[in-house]
Amino acid sequence: MNTPDSAALAAVLERLRAQHPLILSLTNTVVQPITANMLLAVGAAPVMLNDAEETEQLLSTCANGLLINVGTLSHPQAEQMRRAVCAAQAARIPWVLDPVAVGLLRFRTEFCQELLTLHPTLIRGNASEIMALAGEAPGGRGTDSTAESEAAVHAARLLTQQFGCTVLVTGAVDYVTDGARVAALGNGHPLMTRVTGVGCAMGALAAACVASAPDAFTGAVACAAMLGIAGERAAARCPRPGSFAAALLDELDALTPADIVQHTRFVG
Amino acid sequence: MNTPDSAALAAVLERLRAQHPLILSLTNTVVQPITANMLLAVGAAPVMLNDAEETEQLLSTCANGLLINVGTLSHPQAEQMRRAVCAAQAARIPWVLDPVAVGLLRFRTEFCQELLTLHPTLIRGNASEIMALAGEAPGGRGTDSTAESEAAVHAARLLTQQFGCTVLVTGAVDYVTDGARVAALGNGHPLMTRVTGVGCAMGALAAACVASAPDAFTGAVACAAMLGIAGERAAARCPRPGSFAAALLDELDALTPADIVQHTRFVG
Amino acid sequence: MNTPDSAALAAVLERLRAQHPLILSLTNTVVQPITANMLLAVGAAPVMLNDAEETEQLLSTCANGLLINVGTLSHPQAEQMRRAVCAAQAARIPWVLDPVAVGLLRFRTEFCQELLTLHPTLIRGNASEIMALAGEAPGGRGTDSTAESEAAVHAARLLTQQFGCTVLVTGAVDYVTDGARVAALGNGHPLMTRVTGVGCAMGALAAACVASAPDAFTGAVACAAMLGIAGERAAARCPRPGSFAAALLDELDALTPADIVQHTRFVG
Repeated sequence: MNTPDSAALAAVLERLRAQHPLILSLTNTVVQPITANMLLAVGAAPVMLNDAEETEQLLSTCANGLLINVGTLSHPQAEQMRRAVCAAQAARIPWVLDPVAVGLLRFRTEFCQELLTLHPTLIRGNASEIMALAGEAPGGRGTDSTAESEAAVHAARLLTQQFGCTVLVTGAVDYVTDGARVAALGNGHPLMTRVTGVGCAMGALAAACVASAPDAFTGAVACAAMLGIAGERAAARCPRPGSFAAALLDELDALTPADIVQHTRFVG
Repeated sequence: MNTPDSAALAAVLERLRAQHPLILSLTNTVVQPITANMLLAVGAAPVMLNDAEETEQLLSTCANGLLINVGTLSHPQAEQMRRAVCAAQAARIPWVLDPVAVGLLRFRTEFCQELLTLHPTLIRGNASEIMALAGEAPGGRGTDSTAESEAAVHAARLLTQQFGCTVLVTGAVDYVTDGARVAALGNGHPLMTRVTGVGCAMGALAAACVASAPDAFTGAVACAAMLGIAGERAAARCPRPGSFAAALLDELDALTPADIVQHTRFVG
Repeated sequence: MNTPDSAALAAVLERLRAQHPLILSLTNTVVQPITANMLLAVGAAPVMLNDAEETEQLLSTCANGLLINVGTLSHPQAEQMRRAVCAAQAARIPWVLDPVAVGLLRFRTEFCQELLTLHPTLIRGNASEIMALAGEAPGGRGTDSTAESEAAVHAARLLTQQFGCTVLVTGAVDYVTDGARVAALGNGHPLMTRVTGVGCAMGALAAACVASAPDAFTGAVACAAMLGIAGERAAARCPRPGSFAAALLDELDALTPADIVQHTRFVG
């Protein structure tokens, strides 16, 4: 298979807008509003739940994608997540793992290792997290990566081979690999790291994109292009973090398939 | 009793601003910030709690209104909500039920049926939710209604008769009925569905309005007018969801009783 | 020791920006996004956790400051907070107590009294809260203070003497005292009380400032100056609460040490 061109990425946005995939985000309590708002802005439908039984029921009836983000993991939430992943697999719904701060804290590190064995469709993390997940490095400091994204491409490949998943490493350059292919995208802006939850919400956006794409690789690359282009445009208008956050949602709403064709920057 | 005219609705805003009612919102974790900010913008005082005993204590001392929103219901929260409703009734404080996604998920559906028997002052929901609550339809997809609001007026009347409550059905047209009267308001803008929590925060705003009104019917109509007019003005200035969210709070803050007299649009 | 001059306050901002202190906020669920965003805007690194063991691990490895805010206290969270405070003390990390609505609700009142005996580095509260904590008054109504900040200076001094802490009383004038010294600052704007979480996020900002200052007193005064000046500038541009919230983050990001030297207003 070839790396998708920008027209294939644009088609993901088109399909997302036509289908409004329902994305269940089991995520940390800090980023719930921006996660829901980013999904709404791009054209997806967000839902969040705290009860394990309701979670299973939603996944077995009408959800189209699932995000598991361990940012503020608790023992009851871990149990809800386990049951969610099983329900998603039974219903053949794509699920994304965002292993926030894995490698730094024991509980989530063990839990993420457990989730890996359940074969996530896609893993989204910064370089530190992807390296820690692959056993290559001790992890970053909270959501800050202490490594460049390129340094994690090797670890990302290892994960794809071991667990049959696709991996999206985010940073100044975003890398996507399914083991066979690697795509590198240069879109984005540093202000995206100055607003809490942009990275975490990207995991939910990735779930929506994968649900609207022919395969997880194309979905993940489309996600990186959409968010990166919207981020660049928002930063051009609003160079400070408070107004940038609102502008980012505005630009996701305004983004067209033609914008993706024109402005996606493949690197290397 | 007649349907209140726009001067009666304006009087609700005036009284709300004079009295700053303290509204306790037991709501889903996604919409807590916008709920508190919408209450502050209009002139009410928000409070949220996670402990059942503190909840009872607040309701028996200084709260003026209560919102119960089941969007991310958990078993501990259901128990907190039961005790809150009993405390609100003992203190003769109005309480609003927002039965998010009722009919779709079993746990919340059974819980909402239980709460109905405790006689909410007001129920706020979209058409799917109101129809599901009355046993007329299977419910929507998360917070999306799959029916037009008018289709739920019959179900709303049934609920008023069976449980002695007032019902606010929200949609492109908002309907309020107490069984004897029906009011229909055409204010509002589709962007209000593109920001997470505007509908959920409306339940808290409704509690503040009912606490500031001669009766629940007048309070609910005033709430629909306030939010609808503010939404129209915000959308006229900010046609994208990120900046619209901030503008909506600005317009609620700027809204005057004269605006309500002038811009409320009764329909039909 | 003398009261720090505005150059000493400016040095706190400079050091904060150089060191990016990692601040763990155990806070109420309503204000988590604005708390994280305010820390990011000023140049600190936010982290939030829900698991007690992860909390202890983070505090014993890489955290630089801790906030305890009891706004939506639950029994599991109280236990997490106890363990956090012990871990912070063992690691000699400064911790800030924000006793939201203490005196009004029994559970948090008893819990705050317990935490006092563990010697917080800094207490941040409005006048009602500080007076209630010192046993002088029955407390306010939620986050609203029913007293002027000056009225609480006596209570603040009592707390410093009894518990060896510094106290920051916020209001139209902010007072900081360590028992020996009192500083009064006149910066700020009433709009800061119309956005949910600005006061609560100030507790986290205070933790970041104390972590970047030679002593808690200097850190607390610097915090009041930073937020007050940013608030004035934001209000001058955006006089309504929705756009003000974004502008406040923009102004914290834009704030320079020179701004602090020039615009800090000591009172009396």
